[in-house]
Amino acid sequence: MNKARWIWYPGDFEICHSLKLHSRREERLSGYPPFWSLSQPYASVIFKKTFSVPEDTTVKVISRSFGGVMLDYRFKPLNKEFEVKKGDHQIAVKITAVNSRLLSIYVNSEHLVTDDTWTVTHCTSEEVKVCDTPKMYREDDDPEVFPFSYERVDPVASENKNGGILYDFGRELFAKLVVSGADKDEKIYVGYGESAEEALDEYSSIIYDEISGSTEYELKARAYRYIFLKTCKVREVYSLYEYVPLETRAHFECDAEKVEKIWNTCEYTIHLNAREFFLDGIKRDRWVWSGDAYQSYKINDYLWFDADITKRTIRALLGRPPYYQHINTINDYSFYLIISIEEYYLYHGDRDFVVSVFENVKSLFAFINGRLDKDGFVQKIGDDWIFIDWSDMVKTGNICAEQILLWRAIKAMAALYAIVGGEENEKESAALYERAERFAEKIKKLYWKEPEGAFAELPDPPVSVKRHANIFAVIYDFVDEEKQRRILENVLENDAVTQITTPYFKFFELMAFCKLGKTEVAQKLIDSYWGGMIDLGATTIWEEFDPTKHGTEHYAMYGEKYGCSLCHAWGAGPIYLCGRYFLGVYPTAPGYASFEVAPQAGAYRRMSGKVPVNGGEVFVEYSVDNGVTCIRIRSDIEGGTLVFGGKRFDIPAGRECVFRF
Amino acid sequence: MNKARWIWYPGDFEICHSLKLHSRREERLSGYPPFWSLSQPYASVIFKKTFSVPEDTTVKVISRSFGGVMLDYRFKPLNKEFEVKKGDHQIAVKITAVNSRLLSIYVNSEHLVTDDTWTVTHCTSEEVKVCDTPKMYREDDDPEVFPFSYERVDPVASENKNGGILYDFGRELFAKLVVSGADKDEKIYVGYGESAEEALDEYSSIIYDEISGSTEYELKARAYRYIFLKTCKVREVYSLYEYVPLETRAHFECDAEKVEKIWNTCEYTIHLNAREFFLDGIKRDRWVWSGDAYQSYKINDYLWFDADITKRTIRALLGRPPYYQHINTINDYSFYLIISIEEYYLYHGDRDFVVSVFENVKSLFAFINGRLDKDGFVQKIGDDWIFIDWSDMVKTGNICAEQILLWRAIKAMAALYAIVGGEENEKESAALYERAERFAEKIKKLYWKEPEGAFAELPDPPVSVKRHANIFAVIYDFVDEEKQRRILENVLENDAVTQITTPYFKFFELMAFCKLGKTEVAQKLIDSYWGGMIDLGATTIWEEFDPTKHGTEHYAMYGEKYGCSLCHAWGAGPIYLCGRYFLGVYPTAPGYASFEVAPQAGAYRRMSGKVPVNGGEVFVEYSVDNGVTCIRIRSDIEGGTLVFGGKRFDIPAGRECVFRF
Repeated sequence: MNKARWIWYPGDFEICHSLKLHSRREERLSGYPPFWSLSQPYASVIFKKTFSVPEDTTVKVISRSFGGVMLDYRFKPLNKEFEVKKGDHQIAVKITAVNSRLLSIYVNSEHLVTDDTWTVTHCTSEEVKVCDTPKMYREDDDPEVFPFSYERVDPVASENKNGGILYDFGRELFAKLVVSGADKDEKIYVGYGESAEEALDEYSSIIYDEISGSTEYELKARAYRYIFLKTCKVREVYSLYEYVPLETRAHFECDAEKVEKIWNTCEYTIHLNAREFFLDGIKRDRWVWSGDAYQSYKINDYLWFDADITKRTIRALLGRPPYYQHINTINDYSFYLIISIEEYYLYHGDRDFVVSVFENVKSLFAFINGRLDKDGFVQKIGDDWIFIDWSDMVKTGNICAEQILLWRAIKAMAALYAIVGGEENEKESAALYERAERFAEKIKKLYWKEPEGAFAELPDPPVSVKRHANIFAVIYDFVDEEKQRRILENVLENDAVTQITTPYFKFFELMAFCKLGKTEVAQKLIDSYWGGMIDLGATTIWEEFDPTKHGTEHYAMYGEKYGCSLCHAWGAGPIYLCGRYFLGVYPTAPGYASFEVAPQAGAYRRMSGKVPVNGGEVFVEYSVDNGVTCIRIRSDIEGGTLVFGGKRFDIPAGRECVFRF
Repeated sequence: MNKARWIWYPGDFEICHSLKLHSRREERLSGYPPFWSLSQPYASVIFKKTFSVPEDTTVKVISRSFGGVMLDYRFKPLNKEFEVKKGDHQIAVKITAVNSRLLSIYVNSEHLVTDDTWTVTHCTSEEVKVCDTPKMYREDDDPEVFPFSYERVDPVASENKNGGILYDFGRELFAKLVVSGADKDEKIYVGYGESAEEALDEYSSIIYDEISGSTEYELKARAYRYIFLKTCKVREVYSLYEYVPLETRAHFECDAEKVEKIWNTCEYTIHLNAREFFLDGIKRDRWVWSGDAYQSYKINDYLWFDADITKRTIRALLGRPPYYQHINTINDYSFYLIISIEEYYLYHGDRDFVVSVFENVKSLFAFINGRLDKDGFVQKIGDDWIFIDWSDMVKTGNICAEQILLWRAIKAMAALYAIVGGEENEKESAALYERAERFAEKIKKLYWKEPEGAFAELPDPPVSVKRHANIFAVIYDFVDEEKQRRILENVLENDAVTQITTPYFKFFELMAFCKLGKTEVAQKLIDSYWGGMIDLGATTIWEEFDPTKHGTEHYAMYGEKYGCSLCHAWGAGPIYLCGRYFLGVYPTAPGYASFEVAPQAGAYRRMSGKVPVNGGEVFVEYSVDNGVTCIRIRSDIEGGTLVFGGKRFDIPAGRECVFRF
C-alpha cells in the first residue's frame, strides 16, 4: 500500500493557491488584486474507489469540508471510524466547498489509504484520476496552506537612522519579519525596501506596515532586503526566509570573469520567484504572468528540472473554462501557455499531464479561434491586450509578431492532439498541422518584404521593420536557414533597427543570436548587462537596467519612485543560455529519450557545467589548449549525441567520454 | 440619494447561498450533498461608479474581502476613510474571494452610497448592473448570512417517554431547538420527528443529534414537529422558528367544507418551503429541484406574488456556465427552468431580470441543443436523467412527454429572445418560433395515434398511451381544442389508462382537467386527497399520500421508515388551482398589463377570494342564488376583463363591480 496523502481534483490545488496568491499584492496598505478574472476551485466533488479488505476492519475519511461517505451505497459520516467487512467494496466521498475552499480528503486506515489510485468527479459523469502533489502525508496537513520551508536570517548590519533603525539583511529576501521585545503601546512604522532608500522613504516605498498592541510580531511574508523600524525600542529583529526547497542540479563556470557569480545571482533570483508558482517579481507584481512564466519554465529545465512547479504554474494560469478573456488578458500570453505545454512535454515526456489539462486547453484554443478574423489572423478585439513587449511598436492591426506566435500555438495544439492520441485526436492533429502550414504561407506572403529581407510589422506600406517578429521567426524556425541568415544580417545585426530595451524580450533575442551561432553577442551582454547590475551591488537581477542611469534612478519604473522590481524572474535568462546554447544540451525526443550536446563556447576558452535531464544530469567540459579542443561529457542517461564540428558522436551513459578536435 | 445597501455581482448571492443550503442536508449525522455539480460565486470582481461631490468630503468603502479602491486611478485602502475633492470622480473597487465567499461592498458616506446605480464586472469587459436584493442596509449586515426572521414557539405538549421527554410543538416547524438548564456532563440524544414515532425512533429517524458539554444549547435549524430528548433533566425547551416573512396576499373560501382549512394548510406548507429558495421539502431533500420549484413559482404567483423568491430560485438553479449536465441532471428540469423564466415574465413583466440571466440561459440552451439527436429530438445521453414523473413509464428512447417539454422550452427561448430584443435577438426569436413549429409537426406526426386519439409514449408500435405526454399537450396548448377534447375523453377520463400516483404530476393533471372545464374533478380530489391528510392530523401537506395505507405506513418512502417528507412544497398546488381556475384570474399580457377573470365554480355554489396581481389584488366573489349567478369583482388595477358565459365584460379598477347572469 502507498503512503497515505491528501488528494483533490486536478487543478483545484493550483486554482485555490492562485486565488490566495493573487490576493496578497500590496501597494501602500491597499490590496491590489489582478485586473483579470480568477477561477474558483470546484464547489462539489465526489472521490471514488473500489477496494478490497482481507479482514473486517475500520475506515475513517478525514475532510475539513461538508459531506458524507457512501460505503456500498450506505451513508457513513466523515471524520469518524466506521466498520468495513472483509471483501470487496465501493466507496464514494461527496463533499462541498462550504467550510473549506479546496476540497480534499485523507484516509490512512489499515486497509485503505488515499493515493493516486482514487478517481474524482466534480459531480459530472467524467471521472478522472485525483491529484496528490505536492504530497502532504500527515492528517493534520492542510492542503489550503502551501508547504513552504522557513529559515532564520539575521540582519548583517543595522544603523540608527531617521529616529529608528535600518536593518540590512545582506541580500534580497522573501520573508516574514519577526520583531521581539517591542513596546506594546507604541505604534511602529515598518518600512520595507529592496533598497535602503526605499525602506527609509515613508512616503513612496511600495510596502510598509504599522504595528502596535503587542511586544512580539511575526509579519506576513514580503519581499525586502532592508527594513526600517521607526523605533529604537526593540530587543531582536530577524527574518524567516520563506521558500520552496528546490535542488539545484545545474552548474556553470568558465574563464570569463564574473560569469559564475552572475549565474549564481540568476539562480537566487529565480529561486525567490519560484514559489507556489513562477512569479514575475517578488515585490511587484507578485502575480503569475504567462509570458514571464514561459521564460521561467525554460530556466527551470536548465536549473532544477522540477516538473511540479511548471505544472502548477500552467494549471494556475489555465484556471477553468469558460474563458472570457485571454490569459492575463493578453493574446500572446494565451499562445505562450499552449506552446509551453508542448515544450514541457518535450523536456519531461509527461503525457499524463497533457491529458489532464487537455480539455481546458481545448477550451482556451476554441476561445482563441473564436476571436480570429475571417482570414484566421489574430487581431485585438475589445479589451484584448496585444503585448509582445514594452516597446515602441505597432499594437493595433494584425501585427506580424502576434501572427507568428499564433502559428506556433496552432502547431503546439496539433502536437498536443497527437500526444493525447486516439483516432479522432490524430485526425484533428493532422488538420491543425495543415492549417498551420497554410497560415505560415499566408503570413510569409503578406509580411516578408524585399529588399528589406525581413518581416515587417504590418502587411501594408510604409514598411516598418522591428526586431520582435523577426526574432520569433528565428527561434521558432518559422523560416528556413537562409532567411534566418538574412534576418540576422538585416535585423539583428543592423543597428538601424530599434534595439530591444527589456530584459524580457532581450532573452528571446539572445536565444536567436545563439541559435544563429552568434554566441559571443550573448556572452558580451551577460557580461555588461548582468555584470553591470552585480557591479552595482545587486544580490538579485532587476526587472530593468539602464547602465546610463545613476543612483536611485535605477529603482524607478512605471512612474513610481520604487516601481522597479529588483528581483525579477525574467532576469535569470543566462541560466538557460548557458545550458541550452553554451553547453548545448537539449532533448530531441520527448522526455530526453534522445538528446544532443552541441557546445558553443563563443568567446570562452574554457567552460564546464552540468545540465539536469530526465533521469539524471549531463556534465560537459569544454577547453581549448594548444589548438586542441577537448570536450569531456558524462551523461547519466542513454540517448545522447555530441554534435560538434559538423559531426555526430554517440555519448554512452554512465562514464566520462573525452572528445578531441 | 438612495439608502446605502450591500451590493454584489448578479447571481453571486444566490450561488453562495445555494452552496451553503446544499451543504446542510443531513442523514443520521452524515452530511448529504447533492449529486449534481454546484456553482461557485465569482472569485474576483470590480465595482464601478462615476460620481460627483458638491464639496470636499471623505468616503469609506467597507468590504470583508481582500482588495483595494481605485479613486481616479489612485490606490486607496478598503475599510478606511479617504479624502475626495469637490468635483467629478471615478471609483473602482477590486476585490477577491479569499477571506469571503460572496464578494460584496458597502459605502455609506455623506456623498456616496452603494445602491443599484453601481456597475460590476467579474474582471472582464462586460459591465452589468449590480444586485442589491435582499436589501441589507446596515454596515454590520453580512450578505453571506441569509436574513431569516425568528419567532419563539413553545411546545404545546410534552410527556415522559422512553427515559426522556417527547415534546410536541403542535405543528411542523423549521426551527432551531433551544435547550436550557441541561446537565453539562450528560450526553443527550436529541431525536427529531415530523411524527412522534420518528422522534422516538433512535434507529431510523432521519435526523438526530447528540449534545453535551454545556447547559445551554441552540441547535442548527432543522425540520420537525416532535422532539425527543433522552433526558429528564432540562429546565426549558423551545423552538426558534426560522422563516422568511412573506405577506399573504391571497385568500380562498367556499361552501365546500374543509376547503379553507386545506387552503391554509397548503399556505403554511409552501411557506415553510419558501426560504433562501423554494425547497422540495424541509426535512428531505432540502434541495432546490427545478421541477418542484416550477410548481412553487406558480403557487407563489397566487399567494404572495413575491418576485424575489422566484428570481432567487431561478438564479440558484441556473448557476453559471459551463453546463456539464442538465439542471439537477434532469433533462426535463432544464426545460422547466427556461419555461419558468418566460412564465415569470408573463406574471411580473420584469424585463430587467430576463436580461440579467439571459447569457446563462443561452448557454444552457446551447447545452440542450448540443445533446439532441440529428432530428432534433431529446434523448438520454450518458448520465442524463429523464424524469418526467415517478411512474411506471418508458424512460429510454425518445419519449413523447420529453419532446413536448422541449418544444415548449424552444418556444420559451423564442419568447426570451424577443423580450431581450434588438435586431439580432428578434431574428433569432423568429427562427426559434419557426423551429418550434416544425418540431411540433414532427412530434404530432410521429406520436399521435389513431384510433387511440392520443399521444403514445413512443413512435413505434406497440402503441402505449400514458397520461404524461397528453397532459402536457393540454396544459401547453400543444394541440388544438378538438384534440384536447379527445385527450380528455380517451386519456384523462379513461380509467383504463394508468393513473398518476404522485401529487407532483397530479398537479399538472388537475390543471389539465380545470383547463378543459372539469373543475369538479379537481375539487373532488382536493376534498378527498388533501382533505384526507388533514383528517389524519396533518399540519402540512405530505410528499405522498395513499389513503389505503395506515398509521406509520404513511411515513415510509424510498425504502426508509421515515423517508416520506411530511411537508412538501408540491402539496400546495390547490392554492394555484383556486386562484388560477376556480376564481379564474390570469394575465393575458406581461406583468398583468391586461388580465382576465374567468371563474369556474365547478361543484361549488359559493366561493370568494382574492388573487395578488402586479400592482394590487383582485377580489372575486361568486354565488348562485335562486338561479341567478352573481359575480362581484374588485380590482386594484386596470386592464381586466370578466369572461363568463361566453361573453366579455370590462373590469374597471378601484371599485366593486357586480355582474349577474
